[in-house]
Amino acid sequence: MAPNYRSVVLRAKSLDLEFSGLTAEIDHVNSLFDSAEFRYQKLKMMAKKFTIPQFGLTAFVKTKETNCYKAYTYNFYIFPASWGSVDSWLTCQASSLKFLCCHEFDFNKWIYKGVSYLSIEQEEELKSQMKQSPYNLARDIDDDYMLKEILRKVRDWLMEEQEDVICLGEFDALQRLYLQLALKKAFPSVHVEIKDSGEVVASRLTSAESSTNEHQIAENLLDNLLGFSKVIRLLIKSKKPLIGHNCLTDMLLIYENFIHPLPDKLSEFKKIIHDLFPVIIDTKILIRENRKSLRGLGIDIGSTALQSLYLTLKNSAAKLSALNPPTIIIHHTSPKYEHAEHLHEAGYDSYLAGFIFIKLAHMLTVTKLGRASSPLITFHDYVQSIQPSVNKLYLMRANVGYVSLKGSDPSYNIPGWLYVQSKDSSALDASELAELFEGYSTVDVRLIDRKTAIIAVSSFIGCRNILKDFKSDGQLLVRKYNIFQHNKLVRYSLWGSLALMGAICVWALLGDQKSSDVG
Amino acid sequence: MAPNYRSVVLRAKSLDLEFSGLTAEIDHVNSLFDSAEFRYQKLKMMAKKFTIPQFGLTAFVKTKETNCYKAYTYNFYIFPASWGSVDSWLTCQASSLKFLCCHEFDFNKWIYKGVSYLSIEQEEELKSQMKQSPYNLARDIDDDYMLKEILRKVRDWLMEEQEDVICLGEFDALQRLYLQLALKKAFPSVHVEIKDSGEVVASRLTSAESSTNEHQIAENLLDNLLGFSKVIRLLIKSKKPLIGHNCLTDMLLIYENFIHPLPDKLSEFKKIIHDLFPVIIDTKILIRENRKSLRGLGIDIGSTALQSLYLTLKNSAAKLSALNPPTIIIHHTSPKYEHAEHLHEAGYDSYLAGFIFIKLAHMLTVTKLGRASSPLITFHDYVQSIQPSVNKLYLMRANVGYVSLKGSDPSYNIPGWLYVQSKDSSALDASELAELFEGYSTVDVRLIDRKTAIIAVSSFIGCRNILKDFKSDGQLLVRKYNIFQHNKLVRYSLWGSLALMGAICVWALLGDQKSSDVG
Repeated sequence: MAPNYRSVVLRAKSLDLEFSGLTAEIDHVNSLFDSAEFRYQKLKMMAKKFTIPQFGLTAFVKTKETNCYKAYTYNFYIFPASWGSVDSWLTCQASSLKFLCCHEFDFNKWIYKGVSYLSIEQEEELKSQMKQSPYNLARDIDDDYMLKEILRKVRDWLMEEQEDVICLGEFDALQRLYLQLALKKAFPSVHVEIKDSGEVVASRLTSAESSTNEHQIAENLLDNLLGFSKVIRLLIKSKKPLIGHNCLTDMLLIYENFIHPLPDKLSEFKKIIHDLFPVIIDTKILIRENRKSLRGLGIDIGSTALQSLYLTLKNSAAKLSALNPPTIIIHHTSPKYEHAEHLHEAGYDSYLAGFIFIKLAHMLTVTKLGRASSPLITFHDYVQSIQPSVNKLYLMRANVGYVSLKGSDPSYNIPGWLYVQSKDSSALDASELAELFEGYSTVDVRLIDRKTAIIAVSSFIGCRNILKDFKSDGQLLVRKYNIFQHNKLVRYSLWGSLALMGAICVWALLGDQKSSDVG
Repeated sequence: MAPNYRSVVLRAKSLDLEFSGLTAEIDHVNSLFDSAEFRYQKLKMMAKKFTIPQFGLTAFVKTKETNCYKAYTYNFYIFPASWGSVDSWLTCQASSLKFLCCHEFDFNKWIYKGVSYLSIEQEEELKSQMKQSPYNLARDIDDDYMLKEILRKVRDWLMEEQEDVICLGEFDALQRLYLQLALKKAFPSVHVEIKDSGEVVASRLTSAESSTNEHQIAENLLDNLLGFSKVIRLLIKSKKPLIGHNCLTDMLLIYENFIHPLPDKLSEFKKIIHDLFPVIIDTKILIRENRKSLRGLGIDIGSTALQSLYLTLKNSAAKLSALNPPTIIIHHTSPKYEHAEHLHEAGYDSYLAGFIFIKLAHMLTVTKLGRASSPLITFHDYVQSIQPSVNKLYLMRANVGYVSLKGSDPSYNIPGWLYVQSKDSSALDASELAELFEGYSTVDVRLIDRKTAIIAVSSFIGCRNILKDFKSDGQLLVRKYNIFQHNKLVRYSLWGSLALMGAICVWALLGDQKSSDVG
């Protein structure tokens, strides 16, 4: 029998989560001009529209006295509760759905059988309706053919007065509770019972029988609607380290779907998320901050995509054997993942993220504590030795590298902004400029007016080389951007006010005085 | 073998369509204050967000020399094409998806196997990309693991130079074409062939073989993406009478998804739809305009919901036998619908709509032409005798009863607007007012300010009774609304400007002078 996720979570050393999302299309909106706050606003809009169809959770349990972790992997299909006044809008792109098809996503399983969930807000809403009357949780039956049919059947049976008992059929847990409540409301003199087989049976209430308590039924119903939210609450309660791979968006989705509507400001979001999950580790950050140490151990990390990372670390086993890394085995209760890869299935991805973390953290801890320590290293040591990378969530293509959940965000990390002006009367074209400079580095372009643009350049070398190569360009004047000289133009630019705010603040903090004689 | 829809459509007397939609939630926004133009704007917003997951089409073919129609029913799962730059957003409510579950909707069939379609706009977009280069239709492979894997396999095979031929597996029609194009682009020296079995096979191109024409492949691919749009084009070409049940929203969805983005104005929409589909019959209109005649024949129509109507007409068979109504049989190529009901499955619903039309139209035609004519009545006679109801699309709970596709819309049909004022200092409450008056008639309430409201009342009797009962009310002053006296208040009201425009224009046209001394 599969062990209950509850006991596994509580025994686990760490928990990893991944979703397969309907959010595949968001990367293209990232820009080097984005501040952390601005990116938060963008992601917040996404999180309000999109949903989490699949939630992957892997619990890593260290086996006693051995250097081995057992991975218990769960892949939950989840679907937002729609009940009474509670409902959710789902938005997705046709191409995202087709993308999920490539990974054998089961849409029927998702919509028909997906585990229900409620945010705290939604739960409160239903609770307050229930407080007025438990029958408020028995929905309007107008649209419910199944219930209409059953009510008709019970009414006919009551009129006929022949059989003592009537079997109403088999239903899933939620339907059973709903039926019980609706029948109790419609026919107070009828006793409705759920058999062990799951079958619902109605009989005439005799004076000896006590009627089932409608408050209890309504509470069970609410508990059933809460469904997957209880797993999230358990994660929160456990305070175990949480590991993800590029997981900022995931944390926003968790917040929006299971906690509250996302707050207006990034700072509020950070505060609450940190209170709920005090240790979050983003493996993307772990790599970025430790590339050099890893190279010292002979591990050259190329792509940081989840699967590539996994393969790199798996294939480095021979090189790393001297470090005595722990073995990680998939527990036989997750047989699906034992023998085959299921990339982009949330459960499997969460296993990969945890695998990556344990392998990396072990290497980094050994490097820090010395090779002799390696057989004795504990999970606690891992978290201690990578402390500088804890609670930082990776930001892709932004003007800072990460969001810091504890304390203030890092200062500006874009090596350079360039100011570009057309030397003749011809207008600048954003995509032409991007193409012109992209050979040097990753760049983003913002047009200020017809003849002026600002270019964000992601690498120091790229920035220097552009300035060198375009020093005497016939068409374009290219200079380091200077806030004091160029500010006025920016103020009247086409930028969104928020982008402008973010950008200028960051620049002012940096106060790049040296370049003021260049512009 | 099932007859091809193409030949059936061309032989059919009439075509009926229905969709099971993700639009179940729109009715609650309807209001008696809505003009046709305003309702169009509301529905247009909906049509841009929602989608058509299932399209039902029934062709009714009259068998020669007999009084019998054979119904050929098709139930298409359709899913918007996402290819290259063409993509669609889908929005739905969790509760709508759950509603589809009650009717055994197969989401995997919809998303995995749904027939592709393109609007004319989208087709043009892909055509112009194809014109630049047919390879533009071979998408970016970055996200396509399947294609990446196959390209790798072919590359390895080319390097090894051992086998002459390599089998790449079996694929669906679209994947095959896509593979053919992508392989041709990557390896011009390779000959890619699709076997009759559907298997894709690659071999080295010899000088004797002519390379498959990439233009031809790209064109086949585009044709495949067009998919269901070709059925719509066939419907347009056939110019057969189209029958629907409450089908205004359906026509908007057809327009938006298969033709062009919906135009700004209702008048433009009407013009183009009428050009494309010159005879549309809405069975809801047919009932509304002929209740009296039907009652004369002993048929009392209660609910006008699709299934109730069907049952009413089916159960009236004995009463109607003297009229010699045609029999309607489901052709054995639609066995699913022969023996069981599949309500809210689009195919079945389209059958019901057609059944209702033929039964109603026959009765009405006999009434007009006399009983002696009944064995000789043709489908053409049906359309002729119900001419006044043709090309009117039903409007539910609006200030007019229908949208007229040919010519101008009807004038105002709301029997009365009432002006309500609080007599003391207490503020009015919209939902309290609605509750107060709903016993008289269907009503909608608009608050003008704290102490004033306008009530739209859907029946003459209701309006009269309210005026009578509230003549000497202590709390509320209730009068017939008068544009000349009350207009100023309305101008400063909370109404949307569009609603206001529609309402005032209509009122002015009606020029209800008699009531000017009442207000």
